[in-house]
Amino acid sequence: MIAMEPIGVVRSGLKSRGGEANGKEATLEIFPRYRGGLDGLDHLSSIDVIWYGHLSKETLRVIPMYSSELKGVFATRSPDRPNPILVSTVRLLSIDIDKGEVKVEGLDALDGSPILDIKHPTKPKR
Amino acid sequence: MIAMEPIGVVRSGLKSRGGEANGKEATLEIFPRYRGGLDGLDHLSSIDVIWYGHLSKETLRVIPMYSSELKGVFATRSPDRPNPILVSTVRLLSIDIDKGEVKVEGLDALDGSPILDIKHPTKPKR
Repeated sequence: MIAMEPIGVVRSGLKSRGGEANGKEATLEIFPRYRGGLDGLDHLSSIDVIWYGHLSKETLRVIPMYSSELKGVFATRSPDRPNPILVSTVRLLSIDIDKGEVKVEGLDALDGSPILDIKHPTKPKR
Repeated sequence: MIAMEPIGVVRSGLKSRGGEANGKEATLEIFPRYRGGLDGLDHLSSIDVIWYGHLSKETLRVIPMYSSELKGVFATRSPDRPNPILVSTVRLLSIDIDKGEVKVEGLDALDGSPILDIKHPTKPKR
């Protein structure tokens, strides 16, 4: 078993699944002891947010969006999966390190989702 | 605290940090109870592997590769960070679902790293 402590929590208008995140603002509320890790983030235009799907269900097969076929969950990005570690690349709007507030646009995490990590975004190699 | 069970383990020639992963093969050994989630993965040419940096150090500031400046860790993709959830997009070579073996190329995870998730890769939004 691997144990992790959230570095913060998502504050968002998305209160239930199925809402639209595009174009909407959310705030990453970073806990005091982790705020030093935000130094230099203000130079980025987008970031990867790694969050935990606290309302996700553990499943091995899902019907992906825009499909009618049951698929192995690892071939999809469904939020329902054995370890719901969810990765969203979002636009960075502003940072207040003292308050621990990171404002972003387009985050598809529900209000109250634990934040596990923030990273510099990268282009996938294909 | 959030607890997760690894879905598998990395078998790789990379035994210590600083090795080169480009062009090298590694095997994702998926534990029996999670193998059903691999159905349909064989249609993909690349996948995102989410692994746990079991040798990572917890730190808030790092000197990134190709830089001499100390930076907040959340502005980087350093393996050393509060929750070392590491995301690598790799080329998919072959899958044997019965054996739970997924062969990939270019994975920068050390031998023995716990695997937390596998996902369909996506282009980041910017």
